[in-house]
Amino acid sequence: MGHLTGEVSYSKGLEGVVAAITSIAVIDGEAGKLIYRGIPIELLAEHSNFEETAYLLWFGDLPKKDELENLKRDLIEHREVPEELVDCIKKAPRDTHPMEILRTCVSMGGCFDTDKNDNSRGANIRKSIRLTAQMPTMVAYYSRARRGLDIVPPNSNLSHAQNLYYMLTGEIPNEEISRLVDVILILHMEHGMNASTFAAMVIASTLSDIYSAICGAISALRGPLHGGANERVLEMLQEIGSVENVEPYIMQAIKEHRRVMGFGHRVYKAYDPRARILKEYAERLSKEKKNTKWTQIAEKIEEVMIREKGKKGIFPNVDFYSGIIYNLLGFPKEVFTPIFAIARVVGWTAHVLEYLQSNRIFRPRALYNGPLDVEYIPIEKR
Amino acid sequence: MGHLTGEVSYSKGLEGVVAAITSIAVIDGEAGKLIYRGIPIELLAEHSNFEETAYLLWFGDLPKKDELENLKRDLIEHREVPEELVDCIKKAPRDTHPMEILRTCVSMGGCFDTDKNDNSRGANIRKSIRLTAQMPTMVAYYSRARRGLDIVPPNSNLSHAQNLYYMLTGEIPNEEISRLVDVILILHMEHGMNASTFAAMVIASTLSDIYSAICGAISALRGPLHGGANERVLEMLQEIGSVENVEPYIMQAIKEHRRVMGFGHRVYKAYDPRARILKEYAERLSKEKKNTKWTQIAEKIEEVMIREKGKKGIFPNVDFYSGIIYNLLGFPKEVFTPIFAIARVVGWTAHVLEYLQSNRIFRPRALYNGPLDVEYIPIEKR
Repeated sequence: MGHLTGEVSYSKGLEGVVAAITSIAVIDGEAGKLIYRGIPIELLAEHSNFEETAYLLWFGDLPKKDELENLKRDLIEHREVPEELVDCIKKAPRDTHPMEILRTCVSMGGCFDTDKNDNSRGANIRKSIRLTAQMPTMVAYYSRARRGLDIVPPNSNLSHAQNLYYMLTGEIPNEEISRLVDVILILHMEHGMNASTFAAMVIASTLSDIYSAICGAISALRGPLHGGANERVLEMLQEIGSVENVEPYIMQAIKEHRRVMGFGHRVYKAYDPRARILKEYAERLSKEKKNTKWTQIAEKIEEVMIREKGKKGIFPNVDFYSGIIYNLLGFPKEVFTPIFAIARVVGWTAHVLEYLQSNRIFRPRALYNGPLDVEYIPIEKR
Repeated sequence: MGHLTGEVSYSKGLEGVVAAITSIAVIDGEAGKLIYRGIPIELLAEHSNFEETAYLLWFGDLPKKDELENLKRDLIEHREVPEELVDCIKKAPRDTHPMEILRTCVSMGGCFDTDKNDNSRGANIRKSIRLTAQMPTMVAYYSRARRGLDIVPPNSNLSHAQNLYYMLTGEIPNEEISRLVDVILILHMEHGMNASTFAAMVIASTLSDIYSAICGAISALRGPLHGGANERVLEMLQEIGSVENVEPYIMQAIKEHRRVMGFGHRVYKAYDPRARILKEYAERLSKEKKNTKWTQIAEKIEEVMIREKGKKGIFPNVDFYSGIIYNLLGFPKEVFTPIFAIARVVGWTAHVLEYLQSNRIFRPRALYNGPLDVEYIPIEKR
């Protein structure tokens, strides 16, 4: 039996195993670098915006002016969701996590897409843009319904980032906040072969449709070991409650081998470049909002953690400062992971589009360590 | 940059790469053997039924009498779906494929599950049983609505297999058909590390919930390179239309390197043991139904294909005869893949439950072959 084994070493979680070749992004975990299509993330965070970086990730180059205008127009045109989805959002039990609603809405959205039976590259690009346009609406509608607030329809005068903030809060953001939301989205848009991107690729590799692939990606991102971590950081800050409590809390956690949320990453063994950028914004925003409590606690946690664990390559990751920023922006905790999804859908669809150009179905092996030649004993004799 | 490469060989689609260790099932592709928990599939097809084999796959042993009774009762009790799902099914656009509706219903079902915030093993087992109980209802309700027929609610006096047939056709099956549906479900329940099972495991490995994992699995199964193939077989038979047309059709397909649906398998290089069992049933049923057209065409295709491609290890797979049987049973073509899902949900959940006992998040690598050090050129200078 070729698939049998007694003792065999294999790479659990496929760590270090190459699953695909990509030209979308590269992470240098040792140096703490993240690069989209050859451009360092720091440059994009400084100069670019959601729409432009999405174009870059999907198509490989920065857009010319008319290309960018076309994409912006497409994204604005497709923000509204079918009436049936709004209905489903309004009727969903209020204790449902927004990630479950997003998963359901994306799946349902697939049933209404006019290109649903077209799996060509052109149709897949159109669907990627529509999904990207609609996901903020799905998230914001449910988030407001859940808080007992009227839903705020999309505003076509606003950019993707501005409109997301507007639909969540009901307020048009000033320039600084608009910039910050763009930066957050850019930083979360793509990160190589993570579990959600990989799930999307596995699904798409059967030549299933792109809504199915994104459904699977959202399903994976929901997990607390992946996107779900950013909610937990804020919960931890709230639990600690004051700067004085940081040292004993963290030392206790380390002693008990409990995971400190927002620290460490399978790939980064240096400071996560996204965390470095978000940290600056968190500090600036907390001063502006005259609410420095969370950033003070966070900085103290960082100090203790780097002192204790920095030598082991454990540093703050992207989740550590994003939750604080969202909180300062007035976003409820349960939309933190959905915002991650709203950005990451660009990376997911970019990888699906890329992989399909030279597709091969993912079908790894499993090693069998169970019994053989078991008798079928009739039920009366068991 | 550690993740960079010029020319590197890697295993596309992870072919041959070990992704997990399992004691659920083993396939010997060279010998054409499929074994569930140590018991050959032939014995289970002959002696067992859906409920008993589901117990075997989930828990590792054949159930004792009271264990089987408890599982049967649980499955019967949870067949009905929330009113909101029925609503969604009734309102779905009629040109939506049932796999899209199933994906959406499973996702929505997760929002209504009473254990939804409990990710313990006990809750995951309960959810696995509920999902297994409800999926036939989701599929049958939409399939009938789509055909303009009244939906047929589940009948608690019927077994899982009988009730599936009953909800789809509105008729209580005789003993032979009941047995056949049980056999079909047993043969489709589990098949190692295929793309849908793997997608479910990748999602579950983030500690996301089991509804998310099954959503991803359904999403993957939908693809024509995976579960979607069984519909295509029937389409091919219809296109060929007569025994005389087989030889020229197949020879032409081979000449043009077109894939002949229902033949060949990544794992089996011998006759698929499931196809062997289904072939017998298809022949018997076609005689009984006095409709031997499709089996005659199929047998001729098999003859030509084995003559031309048998030496290359290309033989009929499970999809080749299942479509003919479904057609003879009066099932519409678009429920073929959903029936696959209704059976395979047992294997999916069994693998998720097993993997979570020693979980590690799936995060493979990607090799980067894109540019580096690209300048950020302002838009007015592009």
